[in-house]
Amino acid sequence: MSLAKFNREIAEIRADRVRGASELARRCLSILAEAARALPAKDAATLRERLLHLAAELAKTRPSMAPVQNLLHRWREESSIDAGTDLAAARQLAAARATALIVASRRAVADCATHAARLLGAGRTIMTHSLSSTVLEVCRLLESDGLRAIITESRPLEEGRQLAERLSTWGVPTVYITDAQMGLFVARADAVLVGADSVLADGAVLNKAGTYLLALAARERGIPFYVCCESFKRCGTDASSPKLEEMASSELGVPNWPGVTVRNIYFDITPAALVSAWIDETGVRWPDVER
Amino acid sequence: MSLAKFNREIAEIRADRVRGASELARRCLSILAEAARALPAKDAATLRERLLHLAAELAKTRPSMAPVQNLLHRWREESSIDAGTDLAAARQLAAARATALIVASRRAVADCATHAARLLGAGRTIMTHSLSSTVLEVCRLLESDGLRAIITESRPLEEGRQLAERLSTWGVPTVYITDAQMGLFVARADAVLVGADSVLADGAVLNKAGTYLLALAARERGIPFYVCCESFKRCGTDASSPKLEEMASSELGVPNWPGVTVRNIYFDITPAALVSAWIDETGVRWPDVER
Repeated sequence: MSLAKFNREIAEIRADRVRGASELARRCLSILAEAARALPAKDAATLRERLLHLAAELAKTRPSMAPVQNLLHRWREESSIDAGTDLAAARQLAAARATALIVASRRAVADCATHAARLLGAGRTIMTHSLSSTVLEVCRLLESDGLRAIITESRPLEEGRQLAERLSTWGVPTVYITDAQMGLFVARADAVLVGADSVLADGAVLNKAGTYLLALAARERGIPFYVCCESFKRCGTDASSPKLEEMASSELGVPNWPGVTVRNIYFDITPAALVSAWIDETGVRWPDVER
Repeated sequence: MSLAKFNREIAEIRADRVRGASELARRCLSILAEAARALPAKDAATLRERLLHLAAELAKTRPSMAPVQNLLHRWREESSIDAGTDLAAARQLAAARATALIVASRRAVADCATHAARLLGAGRTIMTHSLSSTVLEVCRLLESDGLRAIITESRPLEEGRQLAERLSTWGVPTVYITDAQMGLFVARADAVLVGADSVLADGAVLNKAGTYLLALAARERGIPFYVCCESFKRCGTDASSPKLEEMASSELGVPNWPGVTVRNIYFDITPAALVSAWIDETGVRWPDVER
């Protein structure tokens, strides 16, 4: 496998608007595993250098996504290759660590969803925004338990369409609305449940733009606002104000009016004070514990 | 002119998704003026009956829009035709009253905009949602005064595009965002300024869906939230909870997924507590006076 191919894959991850943060983090690990096995290297030291370079490039692709940072960091910590190691053994170690983290990430998502499903219980209407693979898993767990859903289109790319399609397949009665109607519909839900791209050190939640508006409306109408994501999404305490990724303005599909700047910031930050509870693979964390 | 033509015009007003409440109210009056001049009638009593029937039909077209109700009500009050009146004089009176109300409505909008422009002052960044002809007039008044604007696309029909085009023509530096990004951008504005389709008796504001979310975000970030509309938009004290018009779900442009209900409610209600001030043709009304 050539470096050119890895560069293509890095570019793909950078441009990906469909997959969530956890999935992209696992994709990074899977690229590292492949690189560990296949990158040309004359000895363990060269392999180590090349893999660290690749990991650094991967980390730069999605600065707003904590799991990408966290899982790559964990991989670096657990895969330190001694210069004296045999090349084959070094390849084996680095690849195995990446694979183990992929498994851990998948298990964390599944455990998260189990805790969230238990917290919500049967016969509930949940409202969500954007498409989170964790929230999707919660819906799958509750689909035969009388779940109902209120979902948003989630401009500009309308990930809500994929969610609507999946919920339709599962037979979950679903209401599909524009993002602007969130304030009209939140009071019809028993709870809001969103995923997260990152959870900051103070419990604030970085998620698809619009999440903050939904959280404000939920608080105003007395509806609990739950955030469900595995702990790989938590940023370290040293995280300063995070960079919010901005995507191509062409995604809004409007003409180029002179003097008009089209903005397309993908994420917003919901302060911890608006979060009723955080759910991760270890269980439910209520604010008293959190703050 | 035939009744069939009036029925077509009534249908057009019912289906209109482009013009605002004031403009549609004036359109109703202009239809009445035309009907007063041209509807076949053997005497004043018949004309009166036909015009009242037409006015009632027009009032039913847009139940969420107070100016449609208010201006038609004013017209009925001011155009009472005595059965003994000469037919030509009756036609003249009814048409003249409609025309006078059109002029009064236009003047009220212009006066409103003048008060709002004075309140905002020079060199400000205003944020708005949807397209209000009154807000547009405020922008026109302030365009050479260093005005900057942050505007939303306003799904599903994206009236924000028309506003962007106009602001571009006037050379007003403008930021154009998805509705979901309102929470990200509101703190960059000096004030939020929206129009209204109706203002309820308690000061709550019925406006394009999403306005409530913007008001919540404005309060959270300490940005004043001004509502600018002429007093013809105020509902009487007897107004119970207003009907929120729902339009065709096809406007969202999504497939027909089994089990998924696509909702397209056009308006939401922003409680008076979220409004910093109401501006009408008489001036600025602050909450202490209002509540």
